Amino acid sequence: MRNPSLTTLEENYLFEEIAARARSYPKEELLNLGIGDTTLPLQSSIVHAFEKAAHELGDPTAYSGYESSFGRTGLREAIAKTIYKGTVDPDDIFVSDGSKCDIARLQQLFSSDCSVAIQDPSYPAYIGASKISGKDKIHFMPCTPENNFSPAPVDADLIYLCSPNNPTGHVMSHEELARFVAFASQKQSILIFDSAYSAFIQDPTLPRSIYEIEGSKQVAIETGSFSKTFGFTGVRLGWLVIPKELTFADGHSVRKDWITIASTCFNGASNLAQAGGVAALLEATPAAVRHYMQQASLLKKSIPLPVYGGENAPYLWVDLQGRSSWAVFDELLQRDKIITTPGVGFGPSGEGFLRLSAFAKPEHIRKAMEMNALY
Amino acid sequence: MRNPSLTTLEENYLFEEIAARARSYPKEELLNLGIGDTTLPLQSSIVHAFEKAAHELGDPTAYSGYESSFGRTGLREAIAKTIYKGTVDPDDIFVSDGSKCDIARLQQLFSSDCSVAIQDPSYPAYIGASKISGKDKIHFMPCTPENNFSPAPVDADLIYLCSPNNPTGHVMSHEELARFVAFASQKQSILIFDSAYSAFIQDPTLPRSIYEIEGSKQVAIETGSFSKTFGFTGVRLGWLVIPKELTFADGHSVRKDWITIASTCFNGASNLAQAGGVAALLEATPAAVRHYMQQASLLKKSIPLPVYGGENAPYLWVDLQGRSSWAVFDELLQRDKIITTPGVGFGPSGEGFLRLSAFAKPEHIRKAMEMNALY
Repeated sequence: MRNPSLTTLEENYLFEEIAARARSYPKEELLNLGIGDTTLPLQSSIVHAFEKAAHELGDPTAYSGYESSFGRTGLREAIAKTIYKGTVDPDDIFVSDGSKCDIARLQQLFSSDCSVAIQDPSYPAYIGASKISGKDKIHFMPCTPENNFSPAPVDADLIYLCSPNNPTGHVMSHEELARFVAFASQKQSILIFDSAYSAFIQDPTLPRSIYEIEGSKQVAIETGSFSKTFGFTGVRLGWLVIPKELTFADGHSVRKDWITIASTCFNGASNLAQAGGVAALLEATPAAVRHYMQQASLLKKSIPLPVYGGENAPYLWVDLQGRSSWAVFDELLQRDKIITTPGVGFGPSGEGFLRLSAFAKPEHIRKAMEMNALY
Repeated sequence: MRNPSLTTLEENYLFEEIAARARSYPKEELLNLGIGDTTLPLQSSIVHAFEKAAHELGDPTAYSGYESSFGRTGLREAIAKTIYKGTVDPDDIFVSDGSKCDIARLQQLFSSDCSVAIQDPSYPAYIGASKISGKDKIHFMPCTPENNFSPAPVDADLIYLCSPNNPTGHVMSHEELARFVAFASQKQSILIFDSAYSAFIQDPTLPRSIYEIEGSKQVAIETGSFSKTFGFTGVRLGWLVIPKELTFADGHSVRKDWITIASTCFNGASNLAQAGGVAALLEATPAAVRHYMQQASLLKKSIPLPVYGGENAPYLWVDLQGRSSWAVFDELLQRDKIITTPGVGFGPSGEGFLRLSAFAKPEHIRKAMEMNALY
């Protein structure tokens, strides 16, 4: 009766494994450039929105209980207006407790015999959630310096894309995305586009959403997140876009199935988180984005090895010139007490690379730079 | 590529269907005794805990990001101490964004060919989440006045029990629960015990947790919730207990698989909700419980039909004496603008019954009583 797919999974999720290796060192001595966990406090406008929502929950005339499983209308409208400049219908936006949870939940839309194509390297939860839901036909699309981190589409029912990419930092151009949209349209595949880092794109010519590509609403789901842009990693808030135009091969509406799934399996994001989300979206350019991108830039300049990413993405992808990524991870941890993320943890093509996160605390970035640890 | 199980589901989740039927009436005129949505504001100690947590998120020295996917240690310990009086190990308690979400997520522990036994009537999400995950071998255990709402166990891999029951209000005795534990132990079934309403039990001789039964840790998962007890329906906070002692038939630890699933598919409950949860558990007898149980008692006395529940549960289960539950629902809505829940929405044995919720606003209860609507 055990889910047989669970036997095919690595026992430890990547970041749990890293935490386990770091556990024997005093936490306060470690310099953490590993997990993409935010370190900058929230803007006061967001804090005030949380406090107001909390106060209302204690007020008999303002108290309210269950929210819609799809999110508050005001927040759905604010996401449509601020993130998508009115190009996405608020009714097609579904607010959630974060993208990791959405990536797992949306597995339920698809039959377990679906094939899946995944950028290699990529965020481990794509494979984990696919496998747990019984989807074991997984094809890798290697992303390497040789192909400029831009692989050709691979034939599969579901194709995951993350841009700006975690971990490589590569941002797909309009042309690259259009190629995937055309491919999906021809093969009747569905694209799942993870836009968690879109706010970090500095170059205005690069696309921040799959929906900037013509014809994409017919083939693509997009996941979005408040985590990194607004410091909501612990608050938990994200969203999913499932356009009305998206159908299965048999013509059935994907969005309609999602309404069934979200109603049955979810009860909405926390009302406190949603209140803060509305306030967060009023900020034009989030201060956190500027802060982390400055750190990415500093860090990138300090590393005497080939480094990708860090210009339109908060991650640096360091080419270790043939060295093993777990070996370098262990060396940096033991010698310098620096936590990084071994590239191979994101997939086989990540071997020989190390991911550095610009979400680190300023003093950790500074100390790590002083050490010249990566020489 | 569409999940084939979705074709077997009712298009509308019960409470969405009720909302759709009520939509043509002015909301402020409706008396809502339907959905079990809390109406009493939160205790000030909980509001203060939210405000403090919000303030800390804006403070550079106190800000923190990701929480554990399993919940804060302090909250897991508080649940172990307050709810389970130290009889459950905090390491076996997994904090979540609510029981509905847990009931869906825990499907991933089990293979899709598992058979499922469900109390009939019962909370619709058990069937919905089972079916969405491909478990279509569903057996009903009818709960009727004839068997005192206490059915014999039915042979299945997974057996859902809810006590105090939603919707019938029946609380299972030690003997009734022990019968299921013995049965599960003999048949190698797993019990999934939903304790969302346990705080509403007034009779001290009735069990509030499956773990009051000897041998239950070897066979049972328990879900728990802050929603109704503390008014957290919109805040989103719950937990799951998966004891170390619980194994699959092949001896593999269920808890170990859960750690893999929770790490891959979830990122923890909101830090704000968790801070409020710790404060909530400091309250000895939640004021909300007393308030709603007074309302249940008033309501029960006012109904001149056979009524079950309402004494150790916040729901009343009204025997309509042969009338159809949707017909009475529609009549009460159209004539008296009272929203109820038709019993058949919880399963075939619910036909001929109506569920009334004591979570209604005091003025709604009062007005509905004045109308003598159910005569």
